[in-house]
Amino acid sequence: MSYNTFGRVLRFTTWGESHGPALGAVVDGCPPGIALSEADIQPFLDKRRPGQNKFTTQRQEPDAVRILSGVFEGRTTGTPISLMIENTDQRSKDYSEVAKAYRPGHADYSYDAKYGFRDYRGGGRSSARETAARVAAGGVARAILPDVTIHAYVTEIGGDAINRDNFELAQIERNPFFCPDEAAAGRWEKLVDDARKAGSSLGAVVECVATGVPAGWGAPLYAKLDSELAAAMMSINAVKGVEIGAGFDAARLRGEDNADPMRPGTNAPQFLANNAGGIAGGISTGQPVICRVAFKPTSSLLIPQQTITREGEATDIITKGRHDPCVGIRGVPVVEAMMALVLADQKLLHRAQCG
Amino acid sequence: MSYNTFGRVLRFTTWGESHGPALGAVVDGCPPGIALSEADIQPFLDKRRPGQNKFTTQRQEPDAVRILSGVFEGRTTGTPISLMIENTDQRSKDYSEVAKAYRPGHADYSYDAKYGFRDYRGGGRSSARETAARVAAGGVARAILPDVTIHAYVTEIGGDAINRDNFELAQIERNPFFCPDEAAAGRWEKLVDDARKAGSSLGAVVECVATGVPAGWGAPLYAKLDSELAAAMMSINAVKGVEIGAGFDAARLRGEDNADPMRPGTNAPQFLANNAGGIAGGISTGQPVICRVAFKPTSSLLIPQQTITREGEATDIITKGRHDPCVGIRGVPVVEAMMALVLADQKLLHRAQCG
Amino acid sequence: MSYNTFGRVLRFTTWGESHGPALGAVVDGCPPGIALSEADIQPFLDKRRPGQNKFTTQRQEPDAVRILSGVFEGRTTGTPISLMIENTDQRSKDYSEVAKAYRPGHADYSYDAKYGFRDYRGGGRSSARETAARVAAGGVARAILPDVTIHAYVTEIGGDAINRDNFELAQIERNPFFCPDEAAAGRWEKLVDDARKAGSSLGAVVECVATGVPAGWGAPLYAKLDSELAAAMMSINAVKGVEIGAGFDAARLRGEDNADPMRPGTNAPQFLANNAGGIAGGISTGQPVICRVAFKPTSSLLIPQQTITREGEATDIITKGRHDPCVGIRGVPVVEAMMALVLADQKLLHRAQCG
Amino acid sequence: MSYNTFGRVLRFTTWGESHGPALGAVVDGCPPGIALSEADIQPFLDKRRPGQNKFTTQRQEPDAVRILSGVFEGRTTGTPISLMIENTDQRSKDYSEVAKAYRPGHADYSYDAKYGFRDYRGGGRSSARETAARVAAGGVARAILPDVTIHAYVTEIGGDAINRDNFELAQIERNPFFCPDEAAAGRWEKLVDDARKAGSSLGAVVECVATGVPAGWGAPLYAKLDSELAAAMMSINAVKGVEIGAGFDAARLRGEDNADPMRPGTNAPQFLANNAGGIAGGISTGQPVICRVAFKPTSSLLIPQQTITREGEATDIITKGRHDPCVGIRGVPVVEAMMALVLADQKLLHRAQCG
Repeated sequence: MSYNTFGRVLRFTTWGESHGPALGAVVDGCPPGIALSEADIQPFLDKRRPGQNKFTTQRQEPDAVRILSGVFEGRTTGTPISLMIENTDQRSKDYSEVAKAYRPGHADYSYDAKYGFRDYRGGGRSSARETAARVAAGGVARAILPDVTIHAYVTEIGGDAINRDNFELAQIERNPFFCPDEAAAGRWEKLVDDARKAGSSLGAVVECVATGVPAGWGAPLYAKLDSELAAAMMSINAVKGVEIGAGFDAARLRGEDNADPMRPGTNAPQFLANNAGGIAGGISTGQPVICRVAFKPTSSLLIPQQTITREGEATDIITKGRHDPCVGIRGVPVVEAMMALVLADQKLLHRAQCG
Repeated sequence: MSYNTFGRVLRFTTWGESHGPALGAVVDGCPPGIALSEADIQPFLDKRRPGQNKFTTQRQEPDAVRILSGVFEGRTTGTPISLMIENTDQRSKDYSEVAKAYRPGHADYSYDAKYGFRDYRGGGRSSARETAARVAAGGVARAILPDVTIHAYVTEIGGDAINRDNFELAQIERNPFFCPDEAAAGRWEKLVDDARKAGSSLGAVVECVATGVPAGWGAPLYAKLDSELAAAMMSINAVKGVEIGAGFDAARLRGEDNADPMRPGTNAPQFLANNAGGIAGGISTGQPVICRVAFKPTSSLLIPQQTITREGEATDIITKGRHDPCVGIRGVPVVEAMMALVLADQKLLHRAQCG
Repeated sequence: MSYNTFGRVLRFTTWGESHGPALGAVVDGCPPGIALSEADIQPFLDKRRPGQNKFTTQRQEPDAVRILSGVFEGRTTGTPISLMIENTDQRSKDYSEVAKAYRPGHADYSYDAKYGFRDYRGGGRSSARETAARVAAGGVARAILPDVTIHAYVTEIGGDAINRDNFELAQIERNPFFCPDEAAAGRWEKLVDDARKAGSSLGAVVECVATGVPAGWGAPLYAKLDSELAAAMMSINAVKGVEIGAGFDAARLRGEDNADPMRPGTNAPQFLANNAGGIAGGISTGQPVICRVAFKPTSSLLIPQQTITREGEATDIITKGRHDPCVGIRGVPVVEAMMALVLADQKLLHRAQCG
Repeated sequence: MSYNTFGRVLRFTTWGESHGPALGAVVDGCPPGIALSEADIQPFLDKRRPGQNKFTTQRQEPDAVRILSGVFEGRTTGTPISLMIENTDQRSKDYSEVAKAYRPGHADYSYDAKYGFRDYRGGGRSSARETAARVAAGGVARAILPDVTIHAYVTEIGGDAINRDNFELAQIERNPFFCPDEAAAGRWEKLVDDARKAGSSLGAVVECVATGVPAGWGAPLYAKLDSELAAAMMSINAVKGVEIGAGFDAARLRGEDNADPMRPGTNAPQFLANNAGGIAGGISTGQPVICRVAFKPTSSLLIPQQTITREGEATDIITKGRHDPCVGIRGVPVVEAMMALVLADQKLLHRAQCG
C-alpha cells in the first residue's frame, strides 16, 4: 500500500485536487469478464453529487465518470481500470485569505508543516472532492460482489439520533439525509437548515450494513476484516471514529450478553444476536457486516475563528464559499464505496489463499 | 502488507500460536546504530505478562524475549530483528470440548468456515497470546522514537468510567488496572472480582496519548495517520471500536466547538483545544496524538452458552481454563505498542518523502 | 506492489491500452517542492516517440503529456501526480485476423488463457505503447535525482555488437539507433532496413549507466538494488535478459579477476575495476551503476507463421500494420526511465531507514 | 514488499546472520490443509548443506529445520509458518582483519557506507547462509505446487559449459556439481579442485526448469512472471544476471526464428519451440518455464587483493576460512527454491483474480 493506494489484491489509487482539471482512480486487480460500463458507476456518483438540495454544498458538478481503460466490449479485461471525473465548477474565487492563514480544523497547517507549502484552492488534495474518486472505484467493487447488498444511512445528526423502532430501509431514498427514520428526517430539516443559516455545521453518524457476505472472508491478524474496514473508513475526510457491531457499547456489556449464541440453521448456523457485527477473529461469520462511522462537523464556518497566519500572526478567519453544513450526509455513498472496496478485496484475497 | 505483517517501511511480522513451542515477531526496516538489547524490550512484556494478580489470567508465562538477529555489539544493524518468546505454560488441558463445539464470540466458527479446520488449543492463532509478539516489536519501535512519550491507560471498565477531574498519570503504575483515577481503581477491584467469580467478563475502554510527535507525520489519504492507527488498534484481539480525539463525540459537536483554534506560540502554533486528537487531514499537528479503543468482554465464560457442534448439533458450552475477566486491562501495553509501531513507521515514511 | 504498480515509497501505477482513448501513470510519493512541468517530461517522450524515422514504427503519435494533479504553481505538492497521454493515431484497422488467431511470440494466447478473452486491438495492454506511461513517470523520477546522470544506448543489434574502442557518448544523439559507436551505427542502417523490408525483425542489447549514485542505496535482500533493477527491466515488453556489471561474463571470470580492488581515494575509495556494476551485496558502492538488457526481436512479422485459431484450428498468420523492425531501439528511453524510477525509489527508501 | 520480504500473497520474510544464534523464515499466506512436516522441507536443506565434499565450504552445519508455528496435526492451518535453523558451527575465528579492512567484491564497504557499521562475522546478513532460510521457505512453496516439477542444475563452471547433446536429467543426482552432463562433471572435478587449491574461485551458470505450470499464471506488467523471477533470482547472493528462455541469445535471433510457432494440440496448443521460456507477455503459456542465472565467483580468496581499511589506508587482504570455491554449485537448491516461491505466489495471485 502506498500513500494514495488502498487494497491488497484489488487495489485502487486516487489522484486529483479540488481545483485541478480532473480527479480520478485507477482500479487494479479486477477480475476479467465482468460486465461494466459508465452507467454502472454513475448512479453512485449521482448519489454523492453536490448541489442537489440546500443541505449540501451548492457547488455544481455533474461528476460524470469516464472509463479510460480496462474495459473492452462492455466487459472488464483484468487490466487496470482508469476512471476520470473532470472538475467543471471551479469558481474563480479569491483564495488569498486561505492562502495566508490556517483554517482551524482543516488540514491547512498540517499540510504546510509536512510539505512546506500547499495547494490552498478549495483544500487541494484534502478536499472532500477526492471522495468522488472513491465512489467511482466503489462502483467497480460492487460489480465484483453481485451477491452482496450494501446500504449506508445516517443514524444521527448533531446528536439527534434516529429511533431504531422507526427503522425503515425504504425511507433512505425518500429524504435528503439518507435517514431510515421518517420522523428523524423531519426534525433534521430544521436542525441542518438552522446550522447552515448560522454559518455553523453539524456532525453525523453513518451506519453501513453489508448482507450476503459469506463466512470466511478476512484474515488474522493485520488483515482482519474489521481492521481493513477501520482503515478504510478512517481514511475518509472528517471521520474521527469507527466501530464494528456493538462497538463502544460492547465495552459496556458483560461477556454473556455480548457473545452471539448459535443455534443450528439450515445451511449455516443461526446466530441469535449480532453484537460482533458479522466479524469474529477478523473473519466474517456470515451475519451482516455492520460498522458505524463518526463524521465531525465540517470546519468551514462563517463564524469567525481564532487562528494564525503562515507568518505566525494572530488573526480571525471565516471560510466563505460553498460548504456542506453536515458533511456526513454526503458521506453515505462514500462509506458504502469503502465497504464495497474492502469486501471485494477480501473476497479475492480469500480466494487466493483458500481457493 | 500481508496477512500477518503490519507497516510500510518499518514492518513487523508476527507468528505463533497459543500452544506452539514459541511465538515471535520479525521487525524489518529498523534504522541502524540504535542501542537495543533484550533489557530494553522486556519491561514492556513484563507489563503485559499474565498471572500477576487475580484480575488477569492465571497462566504463568515468563515471556522472556530473545533477540535472534539484527543487533550486533548492542546496536541495531539495519537488518531484520527477530524476536522470540517461548511458550512454557502450555498446561496439558483437555481441549476436546472446544475442538467439538464453537465458543460464541470466539473465532472458532469463522476459522473453521475459512480454513476448514483450526488449531483449537487455547485459540491457536486467534489467542491474545499473539499480542506478546506485538509488545516485543513495540519495544523496538520505541527505541526509534526517543523524543516521543506514549502512555495508555484504562478509562472505563464495564461501563464505569473514570472521573477526568481525578486524572493523575502517576496513578497508572499504582493499581492493577492501569487506571489514572484512584477512586475508579478502587471501585473496579470489586467490579472485576465479582465478574470473575460469576464466571462472567467485562469490557473496557483504553485511551492512548503520544506526546512529542512533531507536526508533519502521516499522509493523505490512505496512509493517514488516523487511518493507520485505526487499522493498528482494530487488529488487536477483542477490539471493536477506535476513535481519534473527540471521536464519536465530535459527531455531536457544532463546527465552532469542534475546530481547535490557534494562537501564536513560540516555536509552533498554540492550539486552544485538541478535539482533533493531534491529527488534521491525516497529518500530525504537533499536539498530543490521542486515540481511544473499545475492548469487548472476553468471550471465555463459565456461564453456559448456546452453541452448535462442528456437526451442527445444538449444545451448550462453558469455557474452562485460565482467562482474563477483563481482557482490556492487559490490552494497555498492547495499545501502547501499536501506537509506537505506527508512529515509528510514519516517522520513517515522512523522512522518505520529505527528507 | 500490485499488478500494475511498481516501487516501494516512490510508486507509479500505469494504465491504458494501445487503442483506448488514453494511457497514463499515477506517480505517488514524490517529495514536495520540486520544480516540475510538462516541459520537463516531454523531451523523454519525444525521444521514445514513434514515427521519427524508417527504423521505427510508422504510427504517428504526438505523445503529448498532461499533468492532471500533484503540481501547484510549478512545484510538486507531495500528492499523486497524474500523467495522461492521449492516443490519437488509432488507425481504424481491421483486427479480425488477430482477434481470431494467436500471433506466435505475442501475448495473445497467454492473455486468452488467463482472462478468457482479450482486447486484441494493437495488443491491448501488452502493447509497447504502455511504455510511454513509464517514460513519463521516469521524467518525474529524474527530477528527484538532480545529481544522477543516466544514459542508455544500444550496444548490439541482431548480433552485431559495437566496438568498445569506438565508444563515444556524444554519438548517441547523432544516429537513429542511440548507438555510441559511429561505425556500428553505419552498419546497422542496412541491417535494420533489410530486416524491415524482409518483414522480419531484429533483437538488441541496451546498456544503461547511472553515474552520481552515492554509496549506500539499496538494501538486503529482497530489495537489493540489483534485484529491483532486474524486476524493473524484465517488466519491459520484449525483454528476456538482464545483467548487472560483468553479468554473465562474471560467471566466466576467476575470483581474483572479478573482485574490484580498492585503493585510497579522496572522498571515497578508488575502485580499480567495476565488474560489480556499482552494486555489492545489493547496495550501491558509489561506482557507476551498470546494467544490460536483452530485447527480443518483435514478434510482429510479415513472414507467415504457423499458429492456431482461438478454436484450435491450424492456420498461418502474418501481422500487418505498423511495427518496429527492432523494438530495442525505442527501448532506450524506457530503460533509462526504469533506471531513474528504481534509483529515485531507493534514494527515498534509504532516507527512510538511514536518515 | 519490505526489505527482507518477498512475495505478494504468499510472502516470506527471512532473518538472521551468519554468526547469530539462528536464522529463519516466516512464510505467510500458505493455503490451509496442506500436509507439511519438517521431513518435507529437510531434504532441500540437505541438498544445500555445506561440508558434503571438497567442492563446497567445509563449514559443518546440520541445518536442521524446525517448524515453530502454522502447522497443526500435520497440516498447514493458513497462519504464518515460522521456520528456524540454528547456527551451530560458528567457529571462534579471528575476524579482526575483516573488521578492519574491506574485502573486494564483498558487501563490506557498501554495508559500512549504508549503515555506518556492520556485523563483520562471516559476512553477517550478506552471508550466503541466509539462503538456507529461502530453501526452507521453498519447501513450503513446493507443497503448494503438487503438480509442478522443478529442476535446477549447473550448465557451466568457469566458462566450461555442458554439451546439450549429453544432457541427462538423472545425472544431476550423481555428481557433486548438479551437472546433467557426465563428461562435463568429470572435467569440473579438476577445474574446481585446482581453483580451490590456488585459493581462487570460479563462477557458474545455473539453469532452472519448471514443468507442469499451467497457462495463465503471471500478470501484466509489473507483476510479470518473468519480472518476478528476475527479482527473485537477482536477490540471491552472488547472482549478476538472469535470463528467461533464449534470453540474451534472443537478442541475436531474427523474429521468425525466435517466435514459437503453434500447432493444434490435444488439450492445449502444441508449441514447436520454447524460446519464450514458457512466458509470453508476462503470463505463462503452459510450456516449461525456463530461466538461467549467472553466479559470480565468490570474492573470498586466499590470493591477496588490494583494498583499503575502514580508515582509508591502503592494504592487502586475503580471506581465510571456509569458503566455496564455486558458490554457484550450492546455488542450485536456492534457485529451485526461488522458482517454487515465485510460482506458488503466482498460482495464488492468479486464483485471486481469475478464480
